[in-house]
Amino acid sequence: MNLYFDNAATTHISENALKEYIRTSEDFFANPSSVHKPGLNAHKKLDEEREKIASLLKVKSSSIVFTSGATESIASVISSLLFTTPGKIIISAIEHEAVSSWLPLLKQYGWECKELKARNGIISRDDLIAELTPDTKFIGIMAVNNVTGAIEPINELVQCVRDYEKTINRKIFFFADSVQALGKIEYDLTSLDIDGASFSAHKINGPRGIGMLYLKNPSSFRPLSTGGGQERGKRGGTENLPAIAAFRVAMEEWLTDQKKKNETVSEYKLMTINALKELGLEILSPEISSPYILSFASTLPSEVFTRMLSDKGVYASAGSACSNNTKGESEKILLRMGRKPNEAKNAVRLSFSNSTTKEDVEALISILKEIVNGK
Amino acid sequence: MNLYFDNAATTHISENALKEYIRTSEDFFANPSSVHKPGLNAHKKLDEEREKIASLLKVKSSSIVFTSGATESIASVISSLLFTTPGKIIISAIEHEAVSSWLPLLKQYGWECKELKARNGIISRDDLIAELTPDTKFIGIMAVNNVTGAIEPINELVQCVRDYEKTINRKIFFFADSVQALGKIEYDLTSLDIDGASFSAHKINGPRGIGMLYLKNPSSFRPLSTGGGQERGKRGGTENLPAIAAFRVAMEEWLTDQKKKNETVSEYKLMTINALKELGLEILSPEISSPYILSFASTLPSEVFTRMLSDKGVYASAGSACSNNTKGESEKILLRMGRKPNEAKNAVRLSFSNSTTKEDVEALISILKEIVNGK
Repeated sequence: MNLYFDNAATTHISENALKEYIRTSEDFFANPSSVHKPGLNAHKKLDEEREKIASLLKVKSSSIVFTSGATESIASVISSLLFTTPGKIIISAIEHEAVSSWLPLLKQYGWECKELKARNGIISRDDLIAELTPDTKFIGIMAVNNVTGAIEPINELVQCVRDYEKTINRKIFFFADSVQALGKIEYDLTSLDIDGASFSAHKINGPRGIGMLYLKNPSSFRPLSTGGGQERGKRGGTENLPAIAAFRVAMEEWLTDQKKKNETVSEYKLMTINALKELGLEILSPEISSPYILSFASTLPSEVFTRMLSDKGVYASAGSACSNNTKGESEKILLRMGRKPNEAKNAVRLSFSNSTTKEDVEALISILKEIVNGK
Repeated sequence: MNLYFDNAATTHISENALKEYIRTSEDFFANPSSVHKPGLNAHKKLDEEREKIASLLKVKSSSIVFTSGATESIASVISSLLFTTPGKIIISAIEHEAVSSWLPLLKQYGWECKELKARNGIISRDDLIAELTPDTKFIGIMAVNNVTGAIEPINELVQCVRDYEKTINRKIFFFADSVQALGKIEYDLTSLDIDGASFSAHKINGPRGIGMLYLKNPSSFRPLSTGGGQERGKRGGTENLPAIAAFRVAMEEWLTDQKKKNETVSEYKLMTINALKELGLEILSPEISSPYILSFASTLPSEVFTRMLSDKGVYASAGSACSNNTKGESEKILLRMGRKPNEAKNAVRLSFSNSTTKEDVEALISILKEIVNGK
């Protein structure tokens, strides 16, 4: 039995992904930038991995930049704004700190920063339209919120921006942090008209320390520093080939039968929701949310409830698993979604994996009942 | 026989480091920021690894920030200057692109940028003193040059800066990119009075995608973005615990009997130098250089000579293994050291490991003779 319900924080690396990591470390150890035989072999392998991942995502391989993770992917794009003339940046008020922590610097450099409210967790088209101005240059709205699983209407929001662009005759960069979206909701880069997105391997059974930056038009993107010129000048540093190969294996596995897996996880989420409702608890995740994330208001402060769960072998979290003030951050996000202070204070996040079983969920429910009923 | 002589580009991961990577991936899979039991275990492991590494380097554990590699460590420190009032930055003219590629942005933001010449590959005290001005804020000089192995007199250079600071009554940040120094020359952070340094695991048999930023006074350092607040607010992103643990194992192994190993490598370098001299070839590495790096001017353009070596199973490089224009970059560095255009154009870098054997070196020498003598 596996009562680890913190898969939005990180997942176990899959056996095959780890095997590929080991194999690549051993067989393709050379630096892909070296021009001798093992270097060229490593370079070929890197190209192949990029092609395979591009094909899984149905995008051009040139649009993929490998990074150390989503935080770096986001940093790369947002920091590049410092090269440009300041304008207006619009993000949602419920972005991960990897995005929102950039606002002070941008303000210091003369950027106007606007955070869009998220009533019930969802960014509204009208709120975005109301904020679009001729000097708007960048929009950052996450595809799936990490605290509640809320699915944002990215397609609809992008369309507003594309319509507005016609009136100002200039492109606006639309970035969607997609860490909790890939493989977990219907997410198709070919139909999404976004300019950039961030991804992380370790949220889908891949290794730690590897992620991706998707850039629709890589030629229009100039990072703060090119370092050693790797990743076609988009990201410096020796390429982490073993982790890239393992990421590809994890992605292949995760995306196989994705629709069916997600439907199963949806059922488990519904089972849990029904049980929580029977216990009289408030569900904090909006209706339109990822099957993989379920946020609810417990009967006790989050840290107490999650510790009680942990003592019984159920591993959940208060919200996101980042920052040394995790709870404060998740609480803030929930308050910004219009949740009551008490709900935000008592919030617990359960996050599923596509390997979660019905037995796991039944055990979870029974332990939730024990705690709430004070047994 | 192992005729891989490109260890300055990257090394094989050691068997034990890879085992530790696997073990940590499996046993400490949780996010160190999660507050449930496996999360707390992962956090404890992270603290322990940091303590062990700090103890190996004889520094405080709070001075260590784990990053995705040296390029990121450098970027973190240099980009943080963008938060501050512009001043003067002095770097050596032979820095790795991970450092030098920052100059255009700094110039754009009003910084005065000065690159110190490196006659015979070595930065002179007098040249540095001549450039110190009251608005000097940052100095970046690598401990060991990656193209020639030149060992820079960091201690002496830092002392000039510390003396100068007294006249302006303000601290100047002294950063030393130490990627090719750790474990390869006598390098002691306790006696070096530097403020910051960058390190990379994969240059000493550790895994790819993990590195360190050393900060003497971490409290005085503010990165551009804190992301999710990990690494005590110095570096966002889920910690790459498997790679950190593997880095520690690699470092422990590499530093065991370091003095003796380096003496042996020195002997191998000397054997090779003598053979090259007998062949009438010019040695480009200065006398005071790392035992692990040997640069020489071959009889043919670098790319031709290294390809011929590669065809015979000897893997060397033209210079650094970075950038898609590797050769141009190394050529530039050599010209800046006062080397003749022809020498720079024909430069070949051999870089040793502490597992290189005498038989490997003898085989290398015999193949070098074959090529030079046109056999």
